[in-house]
Amino acid sequence: MSITPLFNQVALIGSGLIGSSLARAIGKHGLAKKIVMADANLAHLERVRALKLADQAVADNTAAVKDADLIIICTPLGMTGQVAAEISVALQVGAIISDVGSTKQSVIRDVLPYIPAGVHFIPGHPIAGTEHSGPDAGFAELFEGRYCILTPLPGVDPTALEKLSGLWSRCGAMVETMEAAHHDQVLAITSHLPHLIAYTIVGTATDLADDIKQEVIRYSAGGFRDFTRIAASDPVMWRDVFLNNREAVLEVIQRFNEDLTALQRAIRWGEGDKLFDLFTRTRAIRRGIVDSRQHVPEEQKMKKNS
Amino acid sequence: MSITPLFNQVALIGSGLIGSSLARAIGKHGLAKKIVMADANLAHLERVRALKLADQAVADNTAAVKDADLIIICTPLGMTGQVAAEISVALQVGAIISDVGSTKQSVIRDVLPYIPAGVHFIPGHPIAGTEHSGPDAGFAELFEGRYCILTPLPGVDPTALEKLSGLWSRCGAMVETMEAAHHDQVLAITSHLPHLIAYTIVGTATDLADDIKQEVIRYSAGGFRDFTRIAASDPVMWRDVFLNNREAVLEVIQRFNEDLTALQRAIRWGEGDKLFDLFTRTRAIRRGIVDSRQHVPEEQKMKKNS
Repeated sequence: MSITPLFNQVALIGSGLIGSSLARAIGKHGLAKKIVMADANLAHLERVRALKLADQAVADNTAAVKDADLIIICTPLGMTGQVAAEISVALQVGAIISDVGSTKQSVIRDVLPYIPAGVHFIPGHPIAGTEHSGPDAGFAELFEGRYCILTPLPGVDPTALEKLSGLWSRCGAMVETMEAAHHDQVLAITSHLPHLIAYTIVGTATDLADDIKQEVIRYSAGGFRDFTRIAASDPVMWRDVFLNNREAVLEVIQRFNEDLTALQRAIRWGEGDKLFDLFTRTRAIRRGIVDSRQHVPEEQKMKKNS
Repeated sequence: MSITPLFNQVALIGSGLIGSSLARAIGKHGLAKKIVMADANLAHLERVRALKLADQAVADNTAAVKDADLIIICTPLGMTGQVAAEISVALQVGAIISDVGSTKQSVIRDVLPYIPAGVHFIPGHPIAGTEHSGPDAGFAELFEGRYCILTPLPGVDPTALEKLSGLWSRCGAMVETMEAAHHDQVLAITSHLPHLIAYTIVGTATDLADDIKQEVIRYSAGGFRDFTRIAASDPVMWRDVFLNNREAVLEVIQRFNEDLTALQRAIRWGEGDKLFDLFTRTRAIRRGIVDSRQHVPEEQKMKKNS
């Protein structure tokens, strides 16, 4: 089946898990005539070439975006503003520029000042990932059946929005649009707090005396193991997430803390009814998730979990 | 291949996930001449009969243990003492009595007073489970490749210990022995705290306004989903775990709280280096777990996760 490519030239800045998966998906579905990847990390660049992820792989971001009608910044959040500043002069009129960052208000704050007139800036966030990083970790199916949230600014060009939305749809994603502030609030709960908690609990275990630490590893199947998978996620990415969604994250930590303190108190005073009530209520949310099919297909987990 | 059964008659008190899995495993591997199951829950009892999990299924615990040379209490922890009191008079000399509870000091406290002279009491804990409950949720392979910890008391009869250990080994488990207090401390970290945290975070989300709650469910793939699976575990079982391992759990909550507060502060003050350092250290523990093969075989997850 021959499909007309949506774009002439897509430039992907950054070849990590998301960037390299996007390159593979765009290639697989024939969504661009040409894919150019840029990565300042030369070891990554070499992998991009060896894996033939792009038609062209360059270290220089400005060179990559020249002639591109779609640019997607796939670097850690902390780099996004710098990349935008760098490539600003090379963006062509009519081009669409997007990103894949996990926080959206910070991306707008960091990128918007560098968007020239006639260039369409549409922030995006595919809710997909694994605990693995780098060009080798990506795979074309990463976005299939997963949500991709776009947070267009008021007055966005509808044609540009439709084109970008079409790209993600054809990669298999379910595209939704919402305001950036709302996105950041929802993700603080669904993603940022869980990661912070997982990092904390695994950190707590890391600080244990060596003998008991070995046993924690040995008997991790009791629940702890699930947290270690989350806490093995990319440190740079997650540092940047917490630095860039500070208010929303601090707000949910506060709520979480209050709730944990209440449970702690119930345990101390032996209030079994309170524990039972909460443990029963939480089952309902799981059912909601299973019903809404936001459960990762097991084949996909099998494919990527080590 | 014909193997001499290890036991003449095994009585399993309780037909939940663990009890029913054990019945299936004992049956599959021919480890007992006769399996008797007891459950006061008549709906469960009916399922035990329909699924043909035992040679005999009764509502009365005392009737079940009569003539048994191995009794394993598979009820929630909160029932263990009551069951022991009930069956005490019917235990025959030379019988082994064990359990599968997630805390071991409390089981010793609750059961030991009812052990008649000549009966061998050896507490046990298979570290295996899913978030599903009841006789239908069990499967014979649940214990394969998983640890089963026995916490024998000083002066335990070595032959009895060897027989019980042999049963678990033949069910596919890796058997370890340790002191009850040490077990409770290790499990507080590897299992009880992770469950408490998962219940808390899912509870925090449950209390959100309805509109945002729907979105949390919708976008749960970002990490939250893993917590909801843990927080869907059996409420009665987990209430009893926290009530029966109070000191060890409160101690690890305290450590966790201190660590979370430190991270919260680092986020508030924008201390990226501190976040990065922790997020890097936690990766090492994951590697330890993957290396020690305490990663659940994906086939097993596929089989049981809904």
